[in-house]
Amino acid sequence: MSLGEWDFIRWIQQRTATHPGVIVGPGDDAAVLAPSAHPIIATNDVLTEGIDFLVHQTTLRQMGRKAMAVNLSDIAAMAAVPTAALVGIVAPKLQMLEPDAMQELFRGLHDIAHLYDVPIVGGDTNSWNGGWVISVTVLGQATERGAVLRSGAKPGDRIFVTGPLGGSILGRHLTPIPRVREALRLHQAVNLHAMADISDGLSLDLSHILEASACGAILDAQAIPIHADALKLAEQSSRSPLEHALSDGEDFELIFTVNPDDAERLLQSNPVPNLSLTMIGECVEAGLWLREAGKESVLVPRGWTHGESE
Amino acid sequence: MSLGEWDFIRWIQQRTATHPGVIVGPGDDAAVLAPSAHPIIATNDVLTEGIDFLVHQTTLRQMGRKAMAVNLSDIAAMAAVPTAALVGIVAPKLQMLEPDAMQELFRGLHDIAHLYDVPIVGGDTNSWNGGWVISVTVLGQATERGAVLRSGAKPGDRIFVTGPLGGSILGRHLTPIPRVREALRLHQAVNLHAMADISDGLSLDLSHILEASACGAILDAQAIPIHADALKLAEQSSRSPLEHALSDGEDFELIFTVNPDDAERLLQSNPVPNLSLTMIGECVEAGLWLREAGKESVLVPRGWTHGESE
Repeated sequence: MSLGEWDFIRWIQQRTATHPGVIVGPGDDAAVLAPSAHPIIATNDVLTEGIDFLVHQTTLRQMGRKAMAVNLSDIAAMAAVPTAALVGIVAPKLQMLEPDAMQELFRGLHDIAHLYDVPIVGGDTNSWNGGWVISVTVLGQATERGAVLRSGAKPGDRIFVTGPLGGSILGRHLTPIPRVREALRLHQAVNLHAMADISDGLSLDLSHILEASACGAILDAQAIPIHADALKLAEQSSRSPLEHALSDGEDFELIFTVNPDDAERLLQSNPVPNLSLTMIGECVEAGLWLREAGKESVLVPRGWTHGESE
Repeated sequence: MSLGEWDFIRWIQQRTATHPGVIVGPGDDAAVLAPSAHPIIATNDVLTEGIDFLVHQTTLRQMGRKAMAVNLSDIAAMAAVPTAALVGIVAPKLQMLEPDAMQELFRGLHDIAHLYDVPIVGGDTNSWNGGWVISVTVLGQATERGAVLRSGAKPGDRIFVTGPLGGSILGRHLTPIPRVREALRLHQAVNLHAMADISDGLSLDLSHILEASACGAILDAQAIPIHADALKLAEQSSRSPLEHALSDGEDFELIFTVNPDDAERLLQSNPVPNLSLTMIGECVEAGLWLREAGKESVLVPRGWTHGESE
């Protein structure tokens, strides 16, 4: 631990309010959190400069926000309650930084954590001759209904998404909104069979659900909600708005499946005001298919592959 | 998530045995762990190439081992039981790597995790144009006796360390042995008031205990156990073996305080066979002092400040 880190921990302590779930916050060898009567959820995502963000195109505060939000999105995808976050930061050597660069990054992390009442309870800071790395771990707690896994989809299930998709690279990819509260409300209203967040792309994230659930799906091309950004992006790309919606990724909406009765219930009365809930297809025995103008064709899952390219 | 990452998750799944504490392991949006009747412990440490290790001086397997071990050492410092680990890896671009570099790193992480029965339940892998970054998060569970914090030391307490100190840079810093089981046995045998692991250096880690506990300490120079490596290093440095023992860091032994009765009990009968338990001083009202040849002088805490140098 560097002296710089020690100062930073003090800075964090001052900004991390006392939280009923936290017994010991930053500054000891480890954080101590309240016991959990329900299963514990844990996820870790690492963002790196040049791959996930370009420092000259975004602010560090934005990057902090995104790093926290994408991890909260994973907790949302389990329909769980986030309880605490740990933050590991690797920064370019201190003398190469603006004086308050680290604080700006932390402010961003704190902005989103605070919005979801998630205390930052610990972590680690380092500096080196390389670029920025932001590792965030978020812990959570399943509700009494249990965590929603990818493996629970069944043939006959209806497939829903929580918002319009595609073209996030035009800007939305920097400001993801984790669907934490929405997932919890849906989970209360109906029996969610399987769920994931759309980080890699609709078709690719759906294929992960199908693989885990050992079933297939038919998507209805007409039903897939296409974001205005996908329309805009299609004007300058060689791909259709639908292709963008199917594969762009970083939408951070949820994709989930429910049985036909619950689907009917959701269509009759949306339990989450202002959430644009759309039924886009159904689960079948095997394969992944796109139904377009009455014809079904094989849909090859494609998506954003982090770390491979940008 | 990259396709490479997806393959890697499969590789991990094959090597991560079914574990009673794990409801859902790697491959879903997040891991799901068994509920915890006792407080939950959480720690995150990030190791970076060039700061914490040099790739041409060590193997990736060694680095994996160290990254897991230093986090387990933080769990040991709380006298808690480690329950699960998450691993975030940033690797140089895949085409720049030996074919099985990632596996070697993971083998190292797994070597140590396995030794302490800690399942690796999730994480994230990325590749970029920079060096290696290894972020490990370890979760744990306090025992029914509660976590041991840094803040519980009291004037009159006796101060102990669990092994000889100093000169770890000669090689021991690469192969830390987290004192997980030893801490649990000590915690069962006596009432540990305060504890930390010696990662930054005896005097610096002790100063953190004293600050958190709002008390002081006198160390007995004669009593401090000096590692053979500290003697060896002193031959080539301008510092004494004692100075090395007081400030080198990365010993990963434990430093703890107990009341005089418990100290007597530990000195009469060591509850942990083969653990070299040494009483090195006592807590006082204020200040940090070194008693040498009957005289007390102010001891300025010094230590290894990660990320500042090397």
